[in-house]
Amino acid sequence: MLPLLTRIDHVGIACRDLDAAIGRYEATFGLQVVSLEVNEEQGVREAMLSVGDLQPGYVQLLEPLGPDTPVGRFLARRGEGLHHLGYGVQDIGQALAAIGVRGVRLLDERPRHGSMGASIAFLHPADLGGVLTELVEAAGPA
Amino acid sequence: MLPLLTRIDHVGIACRDLDAAIGRYEATFGLQVVSLEVNEEQGVREAMLSVGDLQPGYVQLLEPLGPDTPVGRFLARRGEGLHHLGYGVQDIGQALAAIGVRGVRLLDERPRHGSMGASIAFLHPADLGGVLTELVEAAGPA
Repeated sequence: MLPLLTRIDHVGIACRDLDAAIGRYEATFGLQVVSLEVNEEQGVREAMLSVGDLQPGYVQLLEPLGPDTPVGRFLARRGEGLHHLGYGVQDIGQALAAIGVRGVRLLDERPRHGSMGASIAFLHPADLGGVLTELVEAAGPA
Repeated sequence: MLPLLTRIDHVGIACRDLDAAIGRYEATFGLQVVSLEVNEEQGVREAMLSVGDLQPGYVQLLEPLGPDTPVGRFLARRGEGLHHLGYGVQDIGQALAAIGVRGVRLLDERPRHGSMGASIAFLHPADLGGVLTELVEAAGPA
């Protein structure tokens, strides 16, 4: 079986105050924000901070737009911390088709809009050991 | 400020049954185990599964050796899922010295033994938005 995943693309971290979280990651590690977006569909204001040069991965800081959003409910239930894990894929349509027949439920049957122009889809955490998992086909070269 | 972190080294995932978790990640994504170890000091049996070719990151699956271990207590409190985030550093001694003066508490004042011969140290989650954070100086070339 060919490996579906090209890399660890990002780690999503839920926070209550995005600006404070950015400040903390900048001051502690010298990370820099490469993208700052509002994603109304997902109900978040978010920052991507780049880690590494050769093949960057990202720390994705997520602040909910309100309490009745997925990240808002996560914060109420679990508090701040690790929220999801995003892997790079070459072709998200092919990846979803392959994974869908392997007994893992897709939260998104079709890709939707993610950070920095990527096409993304989420997989069900209950089928992956409690890990909310995201597949990411980057907008640029993978 | 020079960036301290060279890459996202791994994402640690707590699981109750390591063999079942390995099977799931192999079957779903085609990932392969590159290291399987028992770390008595940390109270875990663990597998590293490699993601990507150019500069691999790892999914680290962690099964506690007993209930009265850090991962055992995590499972009792939070259930299976994302446990910690590990970043690569060039020199872990320098990294700890730099971070220690930036207001982040070190759970390990001195590096200890991690997966695949690495030198590792943990940082306090309360100072990093609820994220248990590990620094990793790889045994081989970084």
